[in-house]
Order: sequence, then C-alpha cells, then structure tokens
Amino acid sequence: MQKRIGILTSGGDCPGLNCAIRAVVSHAKLQHDWEVLGIPYATQGLLERKTTLLNLHGLDLRGIDPLLSMGGTILGSINKGDTLAHASEIIASYRALALDALIAIGGDGSLAILHQLACQGNWNLIAIPKTIDNDVALTERAIGFDTAVNTIVDALNRLTFTAASHDRVMVVEVMGRTAGHLALHAGIAGGADCILIPEIPYSIDGVCHQISELRDRWGRKFAIVVVAEGAKTANDSSIAETQNFASLECGMGQYIANQIKSHNTLTDRLDVRVSILGHIQRGGIPSALDRLSATAFGKAAVDLIAREQYGQMVAWQNGRVVDVPIVDVVARSPLPVAPDNYLVQTARCMGIYVGDG
Amino acid sequence: MQKRIGILTSGGDCPGLNCAIRAVVSHAKLQHDWEVLGIPYATQGLLERKTTLLNLHGLDLRGIDPLLSMGGTILGSINKGDTLAHASEIIASYRALALDALIAIGGDGSLAILHQLACQGNWNLIAIPKTIDNDVALTERAIGFDTAVNTIVDALNRLTFTAASHDRVMVVEVMGRTAGHLALHAGIAGGADCILIPEIPYSIDGVCHQISELRDRWGRKFAIVVVAEGAKTANDSSIAETQNFASLECGMGQYIANQIKSHNTLTDRLDVRVSILGHIQRGGIPSALDRLSATAFGKAAVDLIAREQYGQMVAWQNGRVVDVPIVDVVARSPLPVAPDNYLVQTARCMGIYVGDG
Amino acid sequence: MQKRIGILTSGGDCPGLNCAIRAVVSHAKLQHDWEVLGIPYATQGLLERKTTLLNLHGLDLRGIDPLLSMGGTILGSINKGDTLAHASEIIASYRALALDALIAIGGDGSLAILHQLACQGNWNLIAIPKTIDNDVALTERAIGFDTAVNTIVDALNRLTFTAASHDRVMVVEVMGRTAGHLALHAGIAGGADCILIPEIPYSIDGVCHQISELRDRWGRKFAIVVVAEGAKTANDSSIAETQNFASLECGMGQYIANQIKSHNTLTDRLDVRVSILGHIQRGGIPSALDRLSATAFGKAAVDLIAREQYGQMVAWQNGRVVDVPIVDVVARSPLPVAPDNYLVQTARCMGIYVGDG
Amino acid sequence: MQKRIGILTSGGDCPGLNCAIRAVVSHAKLQHDWEVLGIPYATQGLLERKTTLLNLHGLDLRGIDPLLSMGGTILGSINKGDTLAHASEIIASYRALALDALIAIGGDGSLAILHQLACQGNWNLIAIPKTIDNDVALTERAIGFDTAVNTIVDALNRLTFTAASHDRVMVVEVMGRTAGHLALHAGIAGGADCILIPEIPYSIDGVCHQISELRDRWGRKFAIVVVAEGAKTANDSSIAETQNFASLECGMGQYIANQIKSHNTLTDRLDVRVSILGHIQRGGIPSALDRLSATAFGKAAVDLIAREQYGQMVAWQNGRVVDVPIVDVVARSPLPVAPDNYLVQTARCMGIYVGDG
Repeated sequence: MQKRIGILTSGGDCPGLNCAIRAVVSHAKLQHDWEVLGIPYATQGLLERKTTLLNLHGLDLRGIDPLLSMGGTILGSINKGDTLAHASEIIASYRALALDALIAIGGDGSLAILHQLACQGNWNLIAIPKTIDNDVALTERAIGFDTAVNTIVDALNRLTFTAASHDRVMVVEVMGRTAGHLALHAGIAGGADCILIPEIPYSIDGVCHQISELRDRWGRKFAIVVVAEGAKTANDSSIAETQNFASLECGMGQYIANQIKSHNTLTDRLDVRVSILGHIQRGGIPSALDRLSATAFGKAAVDLIAREQYGQMVAWQNGRVVDVPIVDVVARSPLPVAPDNYLVQTARCMGIYVGDG
Repeated sequence: MQKRIGILTSGGDCPGLNCAIRAVVSHAKLQHDWEVLGIPYATQGLLERKTTLLNLHGLDLRGIDPLLSMGGTILGSINKGDTLAHASEIIASYRALALDALIAIGGDGSLAILHQLACQGNWNLIAIPKTIDNDVALTERAIGFDTAVNTIVDALNRLTFTAASHDRVMVVEVMGRTAGHLALHAGIAGGADCILIPEIPYSIDGVCHQISELRDRWGRKFAIVVVAEGAKTANDSSIAETQNFASLECGMGQYIANQIKSHNTLTDRLDVRVSILGHIQRGGIPSALDRLSATAFGKAAVDLIAREQYGQMVAWQNGRVVDVPIVDVVARSPLPVAPDNYLVQTARCMGIYVGDG
Repeated sequence: MQKRIGILTSGGDCPGLNCAIRAVVSHAKLQHDWEVLGIPYATQGLLERKTTLLNLHGLDLRGIDPLLSMGGTILGSINKGDTLAHASEIIASYRALALDALIAIGGDGSLAILHQLACQGNWNLIAIPKTIDNDVALTERAIGFDTAVNTIVDALNRLTFTAASHDRVMVVEVMGRTAGHLALHAGIAGGADCILIPEIPYSIDGVCHQISELRDRWGRKFAIVVVAEGAKTANDSSIAETQNFASLECGMGQYIANQIKSHNTLTDRLDVRVSILGHIQRGGIPSALDRLSATAFGKAAVDLIAREQYGQMVAWQNGRVVDVPIVDVVARSPLPVAPDNYLVQTARCMGIYVGDG
Repeated sequence: MQKRIGILTSGGDCPGLNCAIRAVVSHAKLQHDWEVLGIPYATQGLLERKTTLLNLHGLDLRGIDPLLSMGGTILGSINKGDTLAHASEIIASYRALALDALIAIGGDGSLAILHQLACQGNWNLIAIPKTIDNDVALTERAIGFDTAVNTIVDALNRLTFTAASHDRVMVVEVMGRTAGHLALHAGIAGGADCILIPEIPYSIDGVCHQISELRDRWGRKFAIVVVAEGAKTANDSSIAETQNFASLECGMGQYIANQIKSHNTLTDRLDVRVSILGHIQRGGIPSALDRLSATAFGKAAVDLIAREQYGQMVAWQNGRVVDVPIVDVVARSPLPVAPDNYLVQTARCMGIYVGDG
C-alpha cells in the first residue's frame, strides 16, 4: 500500500543521523515507492508544517552519496524546551500533513516528548535511538555513541603526548550531564588514570591519591583525568544540579582542576591544565559501527511501518535488530551506568580511579 | 594464591592484541601480583620453551603506554600448519614451564589446535577471541574485527572518489576465505554496490545487471564491487577451494574484474580496476571498540583463572562479557554469515546486490 | 570586463582538485562575476562541446560545501592517449564555446598535450599543477602530492605492525613509473628500510644486505621495502620500460619479492609478502596543505586571467605563489629525483638503503 | 673526530620533536659514532646537569621505532620564564658536561634565550626550528606547524556539521597570541567564514556583516568564525595585551561570541557557541611533512656539527634545507603575518572576512 511518511531528527546532532535518513529513504523508495517527507528542525518543522520531499537523487555529487560519511543532519535539529506549549498545533500538523506514519530519530528527551505528542495525537510513531550519551534504555546501541567514543579517544591520545612532555595533569571534560557511559568507555579505551562520572561519587582525595600513586609507585609524572560534565562528590550534589550549566563560570573540568591544584597532599605545585572537548564530540565522519547501526535501524523502521506496527522503537539487542515499545523506553531512560557495570569493574582492575565505589 | 601464568597470541595478527596483553598483565599484576610469562610466536615459543617476563614497566616511553594504541602483537605470532606434529613436545612444555594457566588469544583455527593440545595435556586453558573475520562462534565481538571494518570503509571512501572521477568499476578484494562478515559489514558501511561473499553464491549476470541498473536507472557511471577472497558462484565452487591461494595467478578480485569485462550485456567497454586491500586490513591503530573489548576480555580472562574456571573462552553476549566452553566454540566455528542474516536483508533493502539469494 | 572561462581536470585524479575548482569558481564569481563553464572529462568534454555552468550554489548540502573535503574531481577526468588525433576538432571547440580563457588542472603529460593544443589553437591557457608524482617542474608543490604521501605513510604504519608481528619482509609497491618522489618522501616519513626508485638503480644484493644487517646488527627480524613501480637495476632497464604495465603478470612489488626470496645470501627462508597500495593512493580527504595549495593556485589562476597574462602555470616557489611559462614547465617535466637530492642523502644518513648510488 | 653532543627540546611541545631527536641520534651514531646525550626538560636539565645517553636501541618495541609516529618529546620540555636568572650556572653546565656541541629544538622564545646563553658561554649551538605558530623567521617550515594545521582543519570539519545541523555561529578559538599563521592556514583549509588574527584588526561590525551576508545572500544559516587567541580590534589593543591570559575569565573565543550575541544589527537572536581547541592542537601523530622536515633538519644539524659550523639554525628555504645564523633568526622573530600576505589575499578572494585590512 502506498504510504506517505515523515522523518525528523530531534535533539543534539551526532554522526550517523544522515545514514539513518538515507536508509529510510532508500528502503521506502526502492521497495515500497512511498512518499517520504523530511521535516526540518524537528517539532519546529511540524509546527510550521514545512516539509521537503526526499528522494534518492538530488543530494548526490556525480553519483557519490555524501550522506553516508557526513556528520550532522541534513534535516536540521533543535534542542528547545517549549515544544509542549505548542502541543495542540503540533498534533494537528501531523493530520494536516496527511502522514501515515512518522519516524523520529532522537534521544531520551526527544523521544519522551514525541511519545507524549503521539499518544495525545494518536500518531503512528516509530522511533530510532540516537545519543552520544548512550543512555537510551532497552538498546545496546544508539546512533552516534561509537563515533563520539572514538573522537574522545583520539583527543586523549593527543593530550597524553603533550601532558607527558610537560609533566602535566590534564583534566579532560567530556559530555555527560546525567550519564557517564561516554566518559567510561572513552576513558578506558583512551588510557585515562581517573574517570569521574555522575553515577559514582568521586572525592578529590581519591583523585589526588591516584596522581600521587602514579608518581610515587610508577614514576609517572603526568596524569589524565577524564571528567563527565555531571560528575559529583558524595557530599555535594553535582555542579550540574546546583547551577545552570550555561552560566557556569568555568565548567566541571576547571572546577576539578582547581580542586586538584589546591589539594594539600600534593606538596609539589602540579601543572594542571584543562581541555574541554565540547562540540567536537558531536562531529566527525561516522564510524563503521554507527553507519551500520543507523542503516539497519532505518531499514527496520520502514519494515515496522510496512507491518503497521506502531509505537515501537527499533533497538539493538543480543547481536540483532529488534523493536521495543517506546513507552517502555521512555519509562526507563535515561539509563545510568549501573554500580555493578562490567566496564567500571574493568576500569578498576586496570588501576583506574573511578570514584569511591 | 600466587600464580604463574602464560600468555600467547596465535594466528594472523590484528589491532587490539596488545590491548588484551596489557589488560591481562595489568590485572594479574595489580590485583594478584602473579607472574606473567609472555610466550613468543605462539606454539613455536611453547615448543622452544622461550618466555619473556611481562611487567607493567619496561615497555613505556616516559610513562606513555604504547600498547593501547599499537597494532600487531609484541609477543609475535605464527600461522603455521605443523603444530600438531610437535604436539607431545608442546604439551610437555606447558609442564616444563610450570604454568598454572595459559591464556591464548586466537581465532577459530588456533583455538581448535590449542583446545586439542589442552585436552591432551590437561592444560588450564583460557581463550580470548580475536579475528578480523568475525567467525568465532558464541561471541558477538572478537578483537580486531571493528578496526578492520573501519579500515576497509576508509579505503572504500578513497576508492569511491577515484572511481567516480574516472567512471570506473572498482573491484575491491577484502579478506574472508570462508566467512563474509567483513565484506558484508564494510560493504554496507562503505557504500558498496555489490557485495560478494562465500556464503551466498553470486552470478556474474547479477553483478553486471546491477552495474547496468546503476547507469540506466540512476545515471551512475561508476560502481564499487566488494569481493571476499572466498566468493563463489552457484555452479562452481570457490576459487579458494579449487586452487591454492598462494599460487593464484591473479586473486579473486582480478578474477571478478575479468568476468565483468568480458560479460556480453555490457555493450560499452567498461573501465574495470582492481584494488587488493591485503595486509593493510590487519594493521592500524585499534578502534575504541576493539580496545574496550580487548581490555574487558583480558580482565575477564584473569578473573576466570582466579576462580580456576578453565576451558572457557571469554565472550561478548547481549551487552556484557560472559564465558563459554571452548569446546562449544570450536565445534561451531568458523561461523558463516547465515542466509537470514539481518545485515544481508538490510543490504538488499539498500539496493545492494548480495548474490542470488 | 565580463569574461567566460572554462575549467577542466585532466589525467589521473587526486585529492585537492575539487578545492581548486571551488577556488576558481569562488574568485571568478565573487570578485568578477564571470561565467564559469565546467568541461567534463578533460579534452573529451571539449571534443564533445559539453559544459556545465558552475555556480557557488548547487553543490551544497544545507550550506556545507563538500568540495573542500572531497577527493576526486566533480568534472571527471580521463587518461587517454588519442587526444592529438582529434586535435583540430578540440581546437575548434575552444572557439565554438566562445571561451575567453581555459584553466587546465593537470600533470606533466596533460599539460604537454594541452600546451600543444593551445599553441596551435591560440588558446588563452592557464595551468594549475596537480600530480601525486610531484614531477611537474618549476613548482615546489603540486596538488595531490601531500595527501598521497600521508596516505602511504598511514599504510606503512599499518603494514609495519603486521610485518613486525610475523617477522616478515613486507614489500610495498607505490606509484611512480618514472619519478620516485612519492616513494622517497613516504619511505622516509613512514620508516622504510629500503626505498627503490626509478632514478637510482638498486641491486638485489643491496636490498638483501640491508635485510641481513637489520637482523644481524640490530636484531630486527622484519623489514619494510618501499618500491616505486618503475624501480630498476643498473644492468637491466626497468620492468616498466620492457613490459607493458597493464599486462604485467605480477607487478614490480611481486618481482622484487621473488628476487628477495630466491637470493642466496639469506640462508633462512624469509617470509616475504607484497602489498600493492594501488588506487587508494589517489583517494582520501585532501590534506590541509593540498587544500591550501589548491585554493591559492585557483585564486592565482583567476588573477592571471584578469590580467590577461596567458600561457602561464601557477607555481609554488620559495614560500609563495608565482607563475611560470607553461612552455618551460613542459620542457623540463617530468622532473626526476636528482642524484644529489637532499632527501636521498637524508635517507641514507638514517640508514635506509636507497639504491647503489 | 669523535664528539660528544647534547640535544634538548625547549618550549611548548609539538608533533615531530621525536622525529628530529631520532634523526639526530641515527645520523650521529650510524655515520659518526658520536656520543649523544639527551638533556631533559631543556635548560632545567642543563641546570641540574642531568643527561640520558641516547642510543638507537632502547626505545624500540620488537624493533618498531615509536619515535617516528609519536607526538610530544621523550626528553620533556619546559616553558618557564626564569632561565636567565640561572644563566651562569647553566652556562657552566655546558662545560661541566664536556659537550662539543648542543642541538636545541625550539621556537622563537627558546631560541632567543639559548642564543643569549650560547653567546655568553661560548657554546657551540645548533638550532632546529619548531613551532606550531610558524613564526620563526628565515625558514618556510618549522616542526609541528603542518600537523597543527591538519588538527584544526579536522576539528573545523567536525564543528561545521554540528553548526550546520543547529544553525549556529560557531566561534573556534585556536592558538596564536602574537602571530596568526595557524588561524589563517587552518581557516582557509577548513572552510572558515571569518578569520581573526592579531596582525589584522577586526571589527565586530565586520564579523556580523559577514554573518548577515551569509544568511541574506547565500541562505547560509550557520557560520564558522576562527579566532586566534591574540585577535584584536583597531581601537583596542588585544585582550592578550591588556589582560593576563591565565586569568582571563573567558578567553578570546568567548569574548568574540559575547560581542556577536550583543550586536545590534542581528535582529534574530543567534545561537552562538564557542569551541576552544586548546591543548589538542599540540598533540597528534606527526604529519608526513613534519616527519620529513624533522628528519631532514636532524640530519642537517649533525652535518653542521661535523663541519664545526656553529651558531646556525637549520631552515627550509626554496625547497631545500639550508642554514642561517641564529642571531639573524632571533632578530627577526616572531614573524607576523605580513599585511600583503598571499594567503590573506587568497582568503578574501574566497569571500572570507579577515579583518578590516
């Protein structure tokens, strides 16, 4: 049956979004010859009832499809908080656009909002998980995470050489306000000495003890400290919780660096530096894994629509693509690093300080 | 209890082996203070009873641990067929070296041989899976596969631009004599137009029809054909089976290229070129995923020894590290691409020719 | 004065061509508002009088200009030998297209032919040098060379790890039929042990002596031998000269590998492998240097047309862009590696075997 | 004649320093069999008369020489201001260590100090230029610059995708307090829309006009603004001059971002973000060009000592390695971007805003 489907990308961008868009368009056009409407800027495009007809032609450069290796999203995205204020208009747009189904590529925040709109509006919603935080529940993989981990590992490699050359403590701030998966994966793979994440309280004593140990026991005069934005101590709540992030004078990385510098057990004055990886974590050519996940997810999303099996998110479980109810995903997200997480144990066995767990 | 353990790497090398060695040494020394003996060149080292004492110091460069980002294996490896001719001497070596346990990092061929030796010799064997072919059973991940996929995707990206500039059909030969996982993953992620793998017979008619379709339907004057070494047609058995690989005049890539050039449906004379990726597929800085898998596997292998739970291979299943009996792994390996494989279906939905399945 | 200019890319493609096209179009449109015609497939497009109007819009993806980071050439290229058979028609096309000037981006072969056509046809020709062989005379830089050197260095890094893991002699065949600049630059930067180039005859005794020395003096059991396609010995002329390249059974790399394997001084049977880098040397994201050179060259080419100063090639000399008569360039190209070349001396001082000079 | 030479690295580290150390050691040992002493932490090591005997063995990992592809410096470095307070002791150390000559790898600041010490102490000093700022006079190349440019271009590519996806103005702060070569090269190669450097005063009106133009004329809703740390306006002196860098509340990037946000001509509220590339600009695997320059420089430095031609800096001019008096280099460094710089003109012809020149 001929269908007319919409697709949008919501929340912070990441590498692999375009691969998923490409896969949806390819499968929908080649197998089904459906009409595919790209909706720009997520719910903003819905609100304004703007669409772009997506075809397999039109984006190519002498036949080379740039979507496979391009970061970001050709549909644009937004990260705004006032979507629900326009709920009724957005809900009406779905009908006005005469969509048979809507594919939303988003993280836990976006999916929660879209799920609510879909319930109210009786939309035929299909979700594809994306997040560089890896905190969407019920899926082992989400688009963008693998590339972001590789980006940070590459940065850690660069920073390690300069830290070692100058005997510095390098504090590296990475994304992660509520979940520490990114810091944990990248920290282990990149050879960090300390990994501070929101889920496991750190103490500055613990951090400084590790730095001293490296020097006294191993003769290592530099150290790499990976800090998630939302790291916190046992006593205090996170800076992320107590302050508005946007107005933070210095950020979490600088905060930790200041703590290290003023710690009394380190008799020598340490040369402590901060590197905030920031927006580069969202960029880059998608890794092979993100391309594959995105392509398989895009294909599976179209299949769900063909079977008219709505309200589901495509997911990666146990080596294959499955689908799970969006309602269950939203209920359990954002997914934190569990205290008995295997990689936390692994990190500690490698001699990495991962908070006072 | 103080232990004395050996570690070796066997079969073709790949990125991530050194990460696993590093993880084993770190965990065994830091937590247990065991003695760790590196056995060079796999069973050759065992036969000759050569060992190197491995410590956390000694390989570092001003404190930078190069093992995390270094391809290959510092222990060396071999890929020889006559190990079993020396079985009794090798078995005796294990005793002579007074090992409490042996960790072997290897693929399906090496693990089969070492399993046989371990059974005969009553060794305490622990296995860690590595293979760029991804054909070790009972684990979703093996060390080296993710990096190799990324390496091929990078090469495909390079080759696509030159193919497009000159309107060429580029036949790209990748590793995979019996299993096509590598060609399949890399082909999808790298934007291939045809993917020929051992498990799904191709026809040259199918390949040439795809090339014609690209031109006639989409105006695409170039094409990328990814060919596993062991690709075969329905009628003929694989070149890999009928000929000795080492003595092949031209290799599978050239064979396919010749077939395309002489196919009668392509009226224009196509400019068909061959690129054999060869040994570069084994090299490279390990990807973040391979570093993580290798580190988690190395940690888990030491844990198994600490629990004296032998005869097991560490494995990745359902998002976590588990362990499975080596005997089961060996019985089911090498694991082919199944006909109903999800990625095969995905590839076809993207319009890729993946044999006449 | 309003002008109508053509632009074409000729000969083998390389990274950076699209940067130069982009620079020409940007400068010609933004500053002068000229009409810029892209001529596809070099002289083939001229012959057929096909053109594409090039604008700053039209290739972008939501505003991202992909030309800066894209390998290959959006204009297409050819590498054919029969251009001069159609000289009169091609010469006529220039007039028929009513071009005020033609910018040709090409290497020494293409520039020689285009120069001849331009002389006969009284064209207003401006040349931009491109070649991964670096053999265009009178310029220190040509588009594509720096990226190709980096590509080979990356491959050598990969191959070194696998060679070292298996104690192999790895023979790496790189491009360069008449000039060895590419092999020389990449070999030094990539840590080669032997570099065989067309300009300096090698002896197999010399190569094998180096391999023995590495083992006997330094305990090195592997070796990396970089071989240009056109390497030759003192007695024999190059394989490249005596045989048709296309019909070569094995290529220069395999030829050297066979010679090493059968050499009598190496008593142990060496494990010698061959890696032919082939077409990947032409691909890849352009390096920063190639982007800069291409952009500066494209700008300078438009300036020459604005000054109606024709028959010149833009060039890099002494840290700046200059222009030189095409006739002088053609007379002195292809430029070989001189016997007293500074990098040859440098290589030898690093202990690298660079032929029996 | 048998010699005893020292080598040190001074100032901020960068990729390629280890290549130069390797080249010096290789040439000095292989050709001359000299004694080579590594002096750790620049003048600090001299002051404390600490040395490490450098040999060709000792740093290798199964024969793989990691120095060629390793960032940083195995000798360590410092960036301190109080060297001259200990001048007499440092001068005495040179004699105490019985050095025949000293090779110093450093930038303009380090070379000025070492030149002064060498004059006072009658040292046999040879300099090798390194700087990611590219502001050492009398040489077209200095170690580290090419890699740093590539690092920034890679970051700009990442940031462009995320900026484009969210319609953001991305302000990217790069190194360069007094010289803007790095920002200029990387900005052109990376597709920046504005490049603000110390040598050419910018106005916030100019920046905002460019952003408006992009939107109004080209429909581009995002923009990339590359800012050197020392950028300044015509009226005000640089932030770098008026404030202490270390105590800057926000840095130059944030300062510019704030200015853009509060500019009155932009009626819509722009989403302006800042990315500070920071220390990653010093890291990374050295590019092929930096490896070659470093190797050629290291070789040339040893040759100068062999000829006992002291007080010279090795340099790259007109396509070859030459040597120039250190006294002349110091007199003319740091070398700013000249107002008539070719790349400034090129940038402007590409439509990039490069200050109100």
